[in-house]
Amino acid sequence: MSVAETASPLAPLRLKRREERRLRAGHLWVYSNEVDTGATPLTGFAPGQPVRIEAHNGRPLGSGYVNPHSLICARLVSRDPDQVLDKSLLVHRLNVALSLRQRLYEQPCYRLCYGEADGLPGLIVDRYGDILAVQLTTAGMEAVREAVIAALEQVLRPQGILLRNDTEVRRLEGLETYVETLGEVPDPVVVSENGARFEVSLQSGQKTGWFYDQADNRGRLRRYAAGARVLDVFSYVGAWGVQAALAGASEVICVDSSREALERAAHNAVINGVGDRLQTRQGDAFEALKALREADERFDLVILDPPAFIKRRKDIEAGTEAYQRLNQLAIRLLGRDGFLVTASCSHHMQSGAFRQAVHRAARHVDRRLQILEWGQQAADHPRHPAIVETDYLKALYCRLVRD
Amino acid sequence: MSVAETASPLAPLRLKRREERRLRAGHLWVYSNEVDTGATPLTGFAPGQPVRIEAHNGRPLGSGYVNPHSLICARLVSRDPDQVLDKSLLVHRLNVALSLRQRLYEQPCYRLCYGEADGLPGLIVDRYGDILAVQLTTAGMEAVREAVIAALEQVLRPQGILLRNDTEVRRLEGLETYVETLGEVPDPVVVSENGARFEVSLQSGQKTGWFYDQADNRGRLRRYAAGARVLDVFSYVGAWGVQAALAGASEVICVDSSREALERAAHNAVINGVGDRLQTRQGDAFEALKALREADERFDLVILDPPAFIKRRKDIEAGTEAYQRLNQLAIRLLGRDGFLVTASCSHHMQSGAFRQAVHRAARHVDRRLQILEWGQQAADHPRHPAIVETDYLKALYCRLVRD
Repeated sequence: MSVAETASPLAPLRLKRREERRLRAGHLWVYSNEVDTGATPLTGFAPGQPVRIEAHNGRPLGSGYVNPHSLICARLVSRDPDQVLDKSLLVHRLNVALSLRQRLYEQPCYRLCYGEADGLPGLIVDRYGDILAVQLTTAGMEAVREAVIAALEQVLRPQGILLRNDTEVRRLEGLETYVETLGEVPDPVVVSENGARFEVSLQSGQKTGWFYDQADNRGRLRRYAAGARVLDVFSYVGAWGVQAALAGASEVICVDSSREALERAAHNAVINGVGDRLQTRQGDAFEALKALREADERFDLVILDPPAFIKRRKDIEAGTEAYQRLNQLAIRLLGRDGFLVTASCSHHMQSGAFRQAVHRAARHVDRRLQILEWGQQAADHPRHPAIVETDYLKALYCRLVRD
Repeated sequence: MSVAETASPLAPLRLKRREERRLRAGHLWVYSNEVDTGATPLTGFAPGQPVRIEAHNGRPLGSGYVNPHSLICARLVSRDPDQVLDKSLLVHRLNVALSLRQRLYEQPCYRLCYGEADGLPGLIVDRYGDILAVQLTTAGMEAVREAVIAALEQVLRPQGILLRNDTEVRRLEGLETYVETLGEVPDPVVVSENGARFEVSLQSGQKTGWFYDQADNRGRLRRYAAGARVLDVFSYVGAWGVQAALAGASEVICVDSSREALERAAHNAVINGVGDRLQTRQGDAFEALKALREADERFDLVILDPPAFIKRRKDIEAGTEAYQRLNQLAIRLLGRDGFLVTASCSHHMQSGAFRQAVHRAARHVDRRLQILEWGQQAADHPRHPAIVETDYLKALYCRLVRD
């Protein structure tokens, strides 16, 4: 262990009285108003500085790192108060994360590390075979950037690493945004999912290029899509639509606002041998749904996989209304006993409220709704049981029945 | 339509002011304290009598049936106030239900009708090929028993129907309990699930003989069970354990309190060609888990599929404590980075509370818990979006990591 070599007495971060309870219950976050700033002023810390986190009475709670500029001003990394977040710990935690994925996945395409839930707050790693797309989302993880890269190289020996550090959440941490390539990162790369192949651009695609969190939900599509006329709304590069076509859909229309994404979708259909059954339509989703309704189009299956409509708590009301409106437009396009697969990746949209929004949408057009399945984020996006924010993805599989 | 022939003015059931809101929002139940008993005394109705349900102002809300002896004193069957629950409506709704299952399932083994969620409150039908196990759980459905049987015969032409009307919920409706066989019902019958075959007794088994609700969750077991030493607690007739063995588990131990169930489990292992890898152990689950711990046994995967520990709201505290205790005992038996699949079929145990109970159990023995998947009831148990009680099954797939 390198702990003995590298450990130096970490600066203490002292909590107020009774504010240790959340950490003791298993959570990893400290909010700035929970710090005893008399004993340990936040202004005395550099962003990302490693700390020993202590209860009000001085009892150690563990080690972590601090960011005086962030509302979440510290994150616990280890219950061992002397443990430093160094290459050795990173290698260990990445190996624990890798062993799970190697057990669960046949192909090396998955989220390898999902921050807190994998014991590494602030580190996201998506794996595309020999290529890694990495996001460092906190000052504490940015501070050990070189150790992260060295650890990834030791554990996976990748051909290339793309640092997609252009995510908005970095701004909350006062970090600059940038994209950087280490080694060789081809464009596009190939993703395998549920037996299909996709070409995606890690450099110009959304987020880290692919949404692995929906992989299982797309796998479930099979039994709903066979023989169906399918509408894939917010299709991005065709992950849902192509898999629906492979499942035997008679026709798929992909709708997205990005021409580049739709070109990829059409190409992905071709390389999977279903190019003749997949069309694309560029435009705003709401407008496209209205236009299809006006043209009196009908579908057996509509898939809604929108971006998060609720990014902040204050958007809950408007966002919920948007989800309901979107689902209502989709439901109007469904044929007899049609299926709706509708997702929300807003963690502020709780599952009960989402179910209600979809239910209201159905009631509004006088249909009886059956919820057949609840889909969630795949197992390579494990949830930390104490951090509800890590459980964010919901997908409802519904049938709409006319009475 | 036979409506015109059979429709007679239904007796009205008048609600109090503003008590129509739940029904208008899509729900199907009326509670006895919501009835305007001045206008329509409940004592004036026979149990199971068909009624027209009206708002306080006389506006019709739909038709349904009443039971003056039940807390849920009426259930809405149709939004059409003149629609009678007769054979014609039963045939229509059963066909709608059947078309869903035929689309989703390759084998004719599933829950064909799940009460409210299939538009038929009080009717449960489980299908085992040509055999049907039926439960009539309300006075209103019991009142149309002959129409139900005639409708099932018309839609499915079954070889035999077993009326398993010995369920406890019938007592809440003031109904007697009985079991009756119509036609020919073999003992055992054969169930196909996820490629495995099982022999079960509809006559002497639990509930209707098989728990179809866990079918998808057992299907997901595959990637966790390969090569694993598995403990299947509350195994019943071996549904989980045999499927784990078929997925490549090196050894499976089934624990159950019923000798008959374990004999079936052992036999089911044999007919699936995994008899050499499945053992059984009769006894109380909690005691068996303790004994295994004392014997220093370790497992790579523990499955907990207990009966509902919380049957009534007042049992929530004690039941939650029991779930936590059970999970703690299981976690102590897990080897390095072991998997826990843990279920609750108590609808009073909400998913957040269940997650917390399992999390606390893990914290108690100093493990870090990752929630990999949330399993739920299968799609042949659709949820009614307005009736939360129809969404009851939760299964957590967890990994327990030592830090």
